[in-house]
Amino acid sequence: MRAMVITTGEEILKGEVVDSHASWISERLCELGVEVVRHLSVGDNLVSLKEVFSRVAGECEVAVVTGGLGPTEDDLTTRAAAESAGVPLVEDPVAAASVAAYFKGRHVAVPASNLKQARLPKGATCIPNPVGTAPAFCLELSGTRFWFLPGVPREMRFLMNESVVPAIVGLQPRGSRLVKTAITTFGLPESVVGERIAGIESGFPGVHVGYRASFPVIEVKIWAFAQEDAGVAKRQEAASAEALKRLEGYVVSEAGDSMAEAVATALCGAGQSLAVAESCTGGLIGNLLTDVPGSSDWFLLSAVTYANSAKEAVLGVSAETLEACGAVSGETVGEMAQGARRVSGADIGIATSGIAGPTGGTDEKPVGTVWIGISTEGGTETHRFVSPLKDRHQNKRIFAFKALDLLRRKVKVGDRENG
Amino acid sequence: MRAMVITTGEEILKGEVVDSHASWISERLCELGVEVVRHLSVGDNLVSLKEVFSRVAGECEVAVVTGGLGPTEDDLTTRAAAESAGVPLVEDPVAAASVAAYFKGRHVAVPASNLKQARLPKGATCIPNPVGTAPAFCLELSGTRFWFLPGVPREMRFLMNESVVPAIVGLQPRGSRLVKTAITTFGLPESVVGERIAGIESGFPGVHVGYRASFPVIEVKIWAFAQEDAGVAKRQEAASAEALKRLEGYVVSEAGDSMAEAVATALCGAGQSLAVAESCTGGLIGNLLTDVPGSSDWFLLSAVTYANSAKEAVLGVSAETLEACGAVSGETVGEMAQGARRVSGADIGIATSGIAGPTGGTDEKPVGTVWIGISTEGGTETHRFVSPLKDRHQNKRIFAFKALDLLRRKVKVGDRENG
Repeated sequence: MRAMVITTGEEILKGEVVDSHASWISERLCELGVEVVRHLSVGDNLVSLKEVFSRVAGECEVAVVTGGLGPTEDDLTTRAAAESAGVPLVEDPVAAASVAAYFKGRHVAVPASNLKQARLPKGATCIPNPVGTAPAFCLELSGTRFWFLPGVPREMRFLMNESVVPAIVGLQPRGSRLVKTAITTFGLPESVVGERIAGIESGFPGVHVGYRASFPVIEVKIWAFAQEDAGVAKRQEAASAEALKRLEGYVVSEAGDSMAEAVATALCGAGQSLAVAESCTGGLIGNLLTDVPGSSDWFLLSAVTYANSAKEAVLGVSAETLEACGAVSGETVGEMAQGARRVSGADIGIATSGIAGPTGGTDEKPVGTVWIGISTEGGTETHRFVSPLKDRHQNKRIFAFKALDLLRRKVKVGDRENG
Repeated sequence: MRAMVITTGEEILKGEVVDSHASWISERLCELGVEVVRHLSVGDNLVSLKEVFSRVAGECEVAVVTGGLGPTEDDLTTRAAAESAGVPLVEDPVAAASVAAYFKGRHVAVPASNLKQARLPKGATCIPNPVGTAPAFCLELSGTRFWFLPGVPREMRFLMNESVVPAIVGLQPRGSRLVKTAITTFGLPESVVGERIAGIESGFPGVHVGYRASFPVIEVKIWAFAQEDAGVAKRQEAASAEALKRLEGYVVSEAGDSMAEAVATALCGAGQSLAVAESCTGGLIGNLLTDVPGSSDWFLLSAVTYANSAKEAVLGVSAETLEACGAVSGETVGEMAQGARRVSGADIGIATSGIAGPTGGTDEKPVGTVWIGISTEGGTETHRFVSPLKDRHQNKRIFAFKALDLLRRKVKVGDRENG
């Protein structure tokens, strides 16, 4: 099955926003075994919309369109769909009920402008929208099944997951129950991840492999449609096991968790609390960890001690160490990690100090150098790592993920030793 | 002048990456007065590439294509361009010199696979690439001028800025020198910014207005082509002044600086140093500030005291205050801000404590509530703000930007009082 994804809106064509809808929808379609052959973005005008719809119609089985279903005059997608199909707009009872239900839930009368949203192309199938005012709809044009979804991210995602995905699963000739494994990896470049995973698709018929890169982490997805044939679910399991073996040493999560979620799981499992001392990462480690809901259960402190005086005052790093070894040194990060632990009473302390760039490097300590310290009841260890990159943002991210990965491994090993 | 932007790569169609190239290129084109009428993304296969090129050719004056110029077998854009034009691939001396120069600079012999990159469609104009291996090129197809650029972000941006933008400026019939003002705003929703700016384009002929939203900040761009007619540069200046007046009270920067850059500028101008105490923002404030190169000159510390015990131990917040008023209170953020200043010796301390969500709210302190404290030699002030959002990430960002905005205003006022 082939699909095209069409996003609409002048703000996309003017570069005012990055079009993340096309990527998100494509990932869902891809997991359903649908081949996405094109993305198109088009402005909010009737001529362009109709031209794009008529070009796409008949070219593939499925098209997913987002945006332009709102109540205002410049929301023209519904009208363009009707004119492309050569049918009038008619009041749709399901759409009218959807709009009425939305406003009733908010104890508000339906505004006149929103009545427009109850009018759909004749012959369209309405998809009620419980999370917003714009009902979605499905309409066939020259053999292509078009789904028209609102552009509001929350509504688009809800309707895609709840309505479009199940409908497409139903359209698949072989039927399907998606079985999927998501493996989060850190520490291998994307090209090497690809080389290691090469051959899995051909070795396990019916099993599909995909990637999603979110620097510096790469997610490997391995999925299949369980009803394709009797053995495919087993093959998907075997393929996942094979992929995990090939990625051994670099797997952060076998459940698609983020690095911070994996750290949270490890710490909660071990019943341990954490304090962080950051220099070059500047608060990024704390920010990543506190993105995890419930992090207050185990995250006590991050002391972002950018100035040496703050390293001394807050963490008790000795002036002698800073003088003799410098801020970017194993000795300093060791004392920082110990200090974070001591001042907060946490079970584990981790610390970073390095040179993110673009300037500040020396021959001995080039841009990209980071020292990471980990302190526990059992002692303090320090690690040196040198990133080949010179970009400040990328280095901050690499340093933070490297520290979290060392922490995660440390907690897991401790777990095993105690268990 | 009308343009289409074409991005290539299976990773885009599979949703493995978000296509930010199309947005970035469109923004540049838009600033040059070029109307972008379509974005297209297409896979790395010869049939699709040729089909898209032939559809776009003749439809607009300009097309910018990215990706597929690399040395490997699956880089097919150059071949597809040649076949679409009906011309052979021939070794281009400029391209060959560009590839040779790149490897010579690295003291490496040119790998055999990279020799392929010196072969361009006959009749194409090579654009040498000093920052990578893939030379770019320009080729006319049915009256449309196609620019083919590498997909590597750094190379694409460099060649777009250095070669494509000047070439398009030269193509504009009226000639042009771009004059541009970028106004960073915070505190108004996008719709209200749009309402306030409405009418400026029509009131100042030849002046263009654009937006770029990067939650929770909105950038307003006001630009014109100075050689369009004698008065247009003056009208662009007048339009910018008018926009600044209409946005008064919400302007972070008149030079398109980010919030963190504006804070840096204000602190450097006042010669003051900063310490931060973060609770709900979890390190985000420190992370934003340390994204600014040179921040070590004025940023001393961020104490991310998530646990109450850390607020007491690191910042000296009193147990009585925490007990009587709670962590999310004016009293607590006041003591946090004072503590950050005291422990680090900074001139200014700022502090946040709030409830980012999704849970943890009460009737009295709902999700979205934040208290912000600012402490200076002159005293300590506290502010309460309630965001209507329930999303943890969005609230962390709003809280952090709100705190930085209050800080920025405070430093500027102090500046005026002392100046």
